[in-house]
Amino acid sequence: VTGFINDASRVRLDGLNGFARLHGELVILDDGARHVRRRSVKLDRVALVSGGGSGHEPMHVGFVGAGMLDAACPGEVFTAPTPDQIASAIAAVDAGRGVLLIVKNYSGDLMNFGMAVDMVSTPTATVSVEDDVSVPRVFGGVGRRGVAGTLVVEKLLGAAAEAGADLQTLAALGERVNARLRSMGVALRPCVVPQTNLPNFALSPSEMELGVGIHGEAGRHRVPRMSADAIASELVTAVLSELAPEAGDDALVLLNGFGATPPAELYIMANSIGGALERAGVRPWRWVAGSFATSLDMAGCSLTIALLDRQLKGFWDAPVHTAAWRW
Amino acid sequence: VTGFINDASRVRLDGLNGFARLHGELVILDDGARHVRRRSVKLDRVALVSGGGSGHEPMHVGFVGAGMLDAACPGEVFTAPTPDQIASAIAAVDAGRGVLLIVKNYSGDLMNFGMAVDMVSTPTATVSVEDDVSVPRVFGGVGRRGVAGTLVVEKLLGAAAEAGADLQTLAALGERVNARLRSMGVALRPCVVPQTNLPNFALSPSEMELGVGIHGEAGRHRVPRMSADAIASELVTAVLSELAPEAGDDALVLLNGFGATPPAELYIMANSIGGALERAGVRPWRWVAGSFATSLDMAGCSLTIALLDRQLKGFWDAPVHTAAWRW
Repeated sequence: VTGFINDASRVRLDGLNGFARLHGELVILDDGARHVRRRSVKLDRVALVSGGGSGHEPMHVGFVGAGMLDAACPGEVFTAPTPDQIASAIAAVDAGRGVLLIVKNYSGDLMNFGMAVDMVSTPTATVSVEDDVSVPRVFGGVGRRGVAGTLVVEKLLGAAAEAGADLQTLAALGERVNARLRSMGVALRPCVVPQTNLPNFALSPSEMELGVGIHGEAGRHRVPRMSADAIASELVTAVLSELAPEAGDDALVLLNGFGATPPAELYIMANSIGGALERAGVRPWRWVAGSFATSLDMAGCSLTIALLDRQLKGFWDAPVHTAAWRW
Repeated sequence: VTGFINDASRVRLDGLNGFARLHGELVILDDGARHVRRRSVKLDRVALVSGGGSGHEPMHVGFVGAGMLDAACPGEVFTAPTPDQIASAIAAVDAGRGVLLIVKNYSGDLMNFGMAVDMVSTPTATVSVEDDVSVPRVFGGVGRRGVAGTLVVEKLLGAAAEAGADLQTLAALGERVNARLRSMGVALRPCVVPQTNLPNFALSPSEMELGVGIHGEAGRHRVPRMSADAIASELVTAVLSELAPEAGDDALVLLNGFGATPPAELYIMANSIGGALERAGVRPWRWVAGSFATSLDMAGCSLTIALLDRQLKGFWDAPVHTAAWRW
């Protein structure tokens, strides 16, 4: 194993216990470690629950708190949470106004969230995030992968829920955000998966995977290494090509590190992306940069752009107090 | 080169320009890119300036802002800032009450900060941070390295400066914090230095360097890889052995990633360190975890513990608004 670990079978639980030690003032780790929830009484509004495989930290546990999620359900590494986990989170945060489920578009996640919905009597609605432009949209297919843009959905809908939006309004808002949200990633080095102690894909040091998924899924092109400027140009072109700004829209830019890319390199990429956006006539309205939706210790980054109208800009700027984002 | 880069000669400047793009609402990058300073008028109090080699981001530029530094001077990668850079920062933030310089204890940094002091007429005082316990303290030697604990000094003295402490009081406070602040690090993989495109030291995947410095300096022992729990036990024992708590003291714990260690692994280490501290009878009063004082893309982490009395606890909890820390 390449990193800090005790045992492959304990990665999920050791990590959750560590997270709870660090952020015990914000969150409670459920007794059975099935979910992480806000340390607060149930609030008279719709509650938000997300989840997915572990290995993407701080997503989603780091986004539980005021203004974002009420609970997150972390599965085993790169594995969907179980229906029992999800049902436990729904029961813990339901305040009688229903629960909105925010799910990345992977069949395993959607299936288990669906089974959880069947286990509870709470009214629910589900938003499936599919922001990754690297795979072509195929009619009738499973749709696109949900990646770092999921955090934008969680932030905007979290603010809307705090403002009192009901379940159907939130579900509709989720679809609206989905349509204005695009991401693409690039990997420079694969991650090592604890269970196998092997890289999850092969990539020579002279190559990079353009359009990689957050589990190391193949992307658009495997190409020779490029400069930061050239990579930024590829990412910006791909993401902007699928976005159609309307009057009044502004661009939220999320630059996400995949786990092993240090801050110094994210700053270099921020400069390159900023330059590429300028050349495309786009001025970032807000920037967020950091390692938020990781893939264990994969080296690389992703670019997410969301077009926000006046209402959505208000939701973005609304206060948030979680382990990973606070403003 | 292993990461996101345009050209080795542009690493410092590209990174600073990216940082300024991301955080332009908080900071100004000097026209000659000599320093980064707070976007605010000069305040009627002592100003704080720090600096050091680039490659440790977000240290120090990410800690410029309300409640911490007034300016930071980033040198070339792993190279002290020039006296001219430091003098430009002193001139830019001096408000007539003097400037406190916070310097990590390396001979190159101390020499250049000293030369800058000779270039200006502003009253200054210097705090030299030496928190790294991995190298024995040798009488008459150069003293110990300053590592992640430097950020604790910057936070506490930043709060004291905001509260109106004068230059001599701040210098004395810096010495007091120095005496209550200890760190030790461990490297699992070296970083690659852009100028040479080579690792800065050799380390086999089955080994680790216990007591590593933030430029890959050799530590106490090169040993076979250990479990997270065993590593935590080594770090906690080494750091606590040099601290002597007094009545009323509480322990601030800073878990710092070196650049390529992802959040998931820092959470595992937080759990292991929390367990080791419990066994030693220490309950963390505050925890901070993240990649704050990095070494380019080195994989590893460091543990810093500071013993804070009532006054220092107040300074720690005082509001801070920088790119990297905000509360």
